[in-house]
Amino acid sequence: MTKQRVIIENVSPCVDNGKYAAKRVEGDNVLVTADIFADGHDELIAVLNYKFSKEKKWTEVPLNHLQNDCWEGHFLVEKVGIYQFFIETWVDAGKTWLHELNRKVNGGNNVQVELMSGAIILDKIAKKIKSKAKDPVKNWIKILNNKDQYNEAIELAFSAEVKKFLADHPIKENTTKQDQVLSLFVEHKKSEFSTWYEFFPRSASDFEGVHGNFKDCIKRIPFVANLGFDVLYFPPIHPIGNAFRKGKNNNPNAMPGEPGSPWAIGSQLGGHKDIHPELGTFDDFANLVEVANANGIDIAMDIAYQCAPDHPYVKSHPQWFKWRPDGTVQYAENPPKKYQDVLPLNFECDDWKALWDELKSVVTFWADKGIKIFRVDNPHTKSFAFWEWMIADVKKTYPETIFLAEAFTRPKIMARLAKLGFTQSYTYFTWRTAKQEIMDYINELNHSNSRNFFRPNFWPNTPDILPYDLQNTAFEANAIRFVLAATLSASYGIYGPVFDLLDTEPMPKKEEYLNSEKYEFKKWDWQTMTPMRLLIQKVNTLRNTKPALQHTYNTQFCETDNNYIISYLKVNTNKNSILLCVVNLDANYAQSGFVKFPYDKLNISEGTPIVVYDLLSDQKYAWNKAWNYVMLDPKVACAHIFEISW
Amino acid sequence: MTKQRVIIENVSPCVDNGKYAAKRVEGDNVLVTADIFADGHDELIAVLNYKFSKEKKWTEVPLNHLQNDCWEGHFLVEKVGIYQFFIETWVDAGKTWLHELNRKVNGGNNVQVELMSGAIILDKIAKKIKSKAKDPVKNWIKILNNKDQYNEAIELAFSAEVKKFLADHPIKENTTKQDQVLSLFVEHKKSEFSTWYEFFPRSASDFEGVHGNFKDCIKRIPFVANLGFDVLYFPPIHPIGNAFRKGKNNNPNAMPGEPGSPWAIGSQLGGHKDIHPELGTFDDFANLVEVANANGIDIAMDIAYQCAPDHPYVKSHPQWFKWRPDGTVQYAENPPKKYQDVLPLNFECDDWKALWDELKSVVTFWADKGIKIFRVDNPHTKSFAFWEWMIADVKKTYPETIFLAEAFTRPKIMARLAKLGFTQSYTYFTWRTAKQEIMDYINELNHSNSRNFFRPNFWPNTPDILPYDLQNTAFEANAIRFVLAATLSASYGIYGPVFDLLDTEPMPKKEEYLNSEKYEFKKWDWQTMTPMRLLIQKVNTLRNTKPALQHTYNTQFCETDNNYIISYLKVNTNKNSILLCVVNLDANYAQSGFVKFPYDKLNISEGTPIVVYDLLSDQKYAWNKAWNYVMLDPKVACAHIFEISW
Repeated sequence: MTKQRVIIENVSPCVDNGKYAAKRVEGDNVLVTADIFADGHDELIAVLNYKFSKEKKWTEVPLNHLQNDCWEGHFLVEKVGIYQFFIETWVDAGKTWLHELNRKVNGGNNVQVELMSGAIILDKIAKKIKSKAKDPVKNWIKILNNKDQYNEAIELAFSAEVKKFLADHPIKENTTKQDQVLSLFVEHKKSEFSTWYEFFPRSASDFEGVHGNFKDCIKRIPFVANLGFDVLYFPPIHPIGNAFRKGKNNNPNAMPGEPGSPWAIGSQLGGHKDIHPELGTFDDFANLVEVANANGIDIAMDIAYQCAPDHPYVKSHPQWFKWRPDGTVQYAENPPKKYQDVLPLNFECDDWKALWDELKSVVTFWADKGIKIFRVDNPHTKSFAFWEWMIADVKKTYPETIFLAEAFTRPKIMARLAKLGFTQSYTYFTWRTAKQEIMDYINELNHSNSRNFFRPNFWPNTPDILPYDLQNTAFEANAIRFVLAATLSASYGIYGPVFDLLDTEPMPKKEEYLNSEKYEFKKWDWQTMTPMRLLIQKVNTLRNTKPALQHTYNTQFCETDNNYIISYLKVNTNKNSILLCVVNLDANYAQSGFVKFPYDKLNISEGTPIVVYDLLSDQKYAWNKAWNYVMLDPKVACAHIFEISW
Repeated sequence: MTKQRVIIENVSPCVDNGKYAAKRVEGDNVLVTADIFADGHDELIAVLNYKFSKEKKWTEVPLNHLQNDCWEGHFLVEKVGIYQFFIETWVDAGKTWLHELNRKVNGGNNVQVELMSGAIILDKIAKKIKSKAKDPVKNWIKILNNKDQYNEAIELAFSAEVKKFLADHPIKENTTKQDQVLSLFVEHKKSEFSTWYEFFPRSASDFEGVHGNFKDCIKRIPFVANLGFDVLYFPPIHPIGNAFRKGKNNNPNAMPGEPGSPWAIGSQLGGHKDIHPELGTFDDFANLVEVANANGIDIAMDIAYQCAPDHPYVKSHPQWFKWRPDGTVQYAENPPKKYQDVLPLNFECDDWKALWDELKSVVTFWADKGIKIFRVDNPHTKSFAFWEWMIADVKKTYPETIFLAEAFTRPKIMARLAKLGFTQSYTYFTWRTAKQEIMDYINELNHSNSRNFFRPNFWPNTPDILPYDLQNTAFEANAIRFVLAATLSASYGIYGPVFDLLDTEPMPKKEEYLNSEKYEFKKWDWQTMTPMRLLIQKVNTLRNTKPALQHTYNTQFCETDNNYIISYLKVNTNKNSILLCVVNLDANYAQSGFVKFPYDKLNISEGTPIVVYDLLSDQKYAWNKAWNYVMLDPKVACAHIFEISW
């Protein structure tokens, strides 16, 4: 039995009823909403209490009633780490009194008794407080109780002073507190907004047939920075196994001298805490990290918890593998793909605690060397419980660390990895190419509860995936997919020179690159500013200067009358960066049609003259009606990125 | 740190993360669904454990994988009371072994090592069990390990015996148990399926101007039973206050001799545990209950926790009221309505525990007299916490008790009352009259999580509400609203003779009856079988004989090409009662159009010849295509209720 009358329900942000923390980034103004209501017709007050978890003092901010018992409030999160919040609410005697008094006065009733009731409330408050604020109250009470001052009393009751006094000193009786304190995980800004470029360090050389190394990579940093990227992701840099090494085009039998797949980690030269000798030394690596950082670029490392058959672990810790009756370990498979050069670790082995500790130490080893970003290979084939523990534990020491989940798998598994701690995730964007399926997917990411934990990172391609719509194509197809990735998600990435140099030849009937860099090293042109590279540079410059492109969950689709033309509005929180993107999804033909300008979404009346300034083409148009003509020839430009002003 | 690999999420039925029990009725086959998945590609087993809460032993039933990591299972609830259930799941070694073996054999691989792995699994199981089942295992192990019996071993591995042995003796290692045991509140069948008639006992007399009584009511029981109702609901039967008694048409000043509103409860003659003397004695009431029960009818009493100014409580327990500075108690208001004859109780008063106990004792007082159903007046103006405590407590002694919430208020409050324990609720049906708004509302009730706690009871009218679409109308309008209520919800009710005698004159510009029975007693014709009464009798007979009409959440709308024609399919759980309802929503004109027969929803191929037999008109039609012509003239019949066969 309890006397509390007010109910708090449906508090957001909340993930799995508070089991996991909702995610935000530093600087976010967090919107909290809840359904709050009581029996009867009394007036409620609701407040939000929040604090940075390591601090002691709660800060209180008001919640405001919107409609239909939904309330909302905001608080700013400025530090990386855990914030906590909870709601408190009560039936407020002062607010109820003023509300009822107002209703009765407006109804033409005599309110003498109500005025006297107000005097009792004021007296009750005054008795409780010690501040000077109570000084005028005695006089107010006299007036409210004096029948000869009826009109004066009404005026007093509705005065700003009385209203403020009641608001400043609410009678918090029988308050309802939210039955749990919710957590928010506030992360580094880059967790939401990051621009990734991937290349293989061994392909960084200036010379044909020469294995690239970290010194070559240092020479590529200006190229990467010049294109506007702020994360440079390398496939694994560890010694590559010799046993069952893969040859060109995934040949199970490598020829002598073939370099093998970087994901076949470990040999007699070392394992996950070692560097492949041909790439250089730890000093070279430190120099590379330093130069990258000086250019505003973080190096992202690959974490692939798996071992080549000659990885040192296999001999030193055989208990970490699942041995078969014939004395072998079954190699990794991701049906139908077979990885003969890779042995999985047994996360359930009897010695699991030591194994998990060792795996965590791999991350902290590289974190100690200044690495803040890890792209995690196939996390969905390793224990969820391991990730949850490992990521939380690493973040205790390195709270800014970013983990990108390379999971292309079933929806509920993708979501779970995000909930349990992965900062970002690869997505289905790679295969969403038609207008409706793009809109559906973005709306799902933006408007379902997944927005509170799943941060997408859009990749048009990866070393594993050359999607069908980018096979044997030219500039136009890559440009479309690039513009979509770079504007629909605050984080996106491209897999390196093959993309910007339009190397789009596939393995026949497969979604894979022919002569994949996974099995050989390449020499790339790092100099020529191709049209693709110019476009990348331009769009990344916009991303870095236009706040509207630095958020993922602000995409609002606009109507168009052509199924090849997709249009979406992006507005930042402060509403001072307003972009309208229009993209032709057809790589083969010019498409024209009408786009409905989102007057409604911008809360301006239809017909207001608008200037739309295309940041890509430097052209300006004046619009003054809802439907406006556009024409996009992908040979010239597949997209408008309009800056809007009026 | 934990080794469990399998995740259980999103278990249904579940209300507010298990804070409240989901509701079912005895005899239901409860569908449980959950998202269940693990890392990697291993095979899972998931089971559902359930029990009646008072029993000790859990029963285990399998869950089956549907698609996309969603699993489902069923269990039958046969008793009224609390059931409990939870899910348990694990990565199953035997199932994984057979799955992998099958994949590799189909892929043309040599599986000698896999056969040996199977032998190890079988050996592990055999060592753990003591039953005879393990007798053949030694021989199986020999065959699986014998290279010379390779083909025989494969055949053995895929044999029914081995499969059954593995399924019967799973290796439950590192099982994941659902982190909470969920509860189901199983209630009396009438909680879902009930047919209500309301009349004022004081209007039951045979003679004009004579106050009716319980003896008269006994004479009305055959009438109510003959129309097919199984609940007879009476407005309050307690002494009516004299102070501020209301007169005809809500006149604040009653004339001498006027009977007042039954909801103004209490006078010097007694309160909530007393009977208004003009209605009779406790013996008369007991006789009435007995006769009603003998006719298959439950008497539903009104619980209105409020007091006329001369209710005994006001003097005996003044501390239960909120006194104002002038020594009065503010009368009840439900803006803009004013109830000068009613004082609210103060659920927050200092003596609240005694008050709450007394109020609970009102319910048990009448429950002791055989009353199982209570229609609760305005529950949304009394403390939620009170209801939650009171209903749970009463149900400990009287588990079959039904509480109908008379709350016409905001959606979240309606939902909360249902979650906290009210068995049924009045609804917005009364104001949903157009096709789309009816469909939207039914779909919300049937397809949102509200189906797990909110049981609608559809009323076309009440003594408080004569909705605009039923004002100054004839048979047709009432017939349409009646057929909709009686077929769209398993529970519905009508407010008495005014409805079936078509007394539809309103207070000008109000949704209220002119000369409302709330303030005077009437003499009604209880004999004539008017067309409306014949229709009620016919439809109630169908409700009592066709199981499809005994469920609320089985309504599936079908397409029609006319906005006045609404059509819906109702199928019971066993799929042996299949009805297609077609209703003309236009009370003024005949409407015709095409209805799409729901071949898809019935899983039969389009074009299959169908017989549709109209249970209302006794006419048969043969249909053999998707779209079929219908014509409904409300003067003749506003609806088809087709029984479907093929």
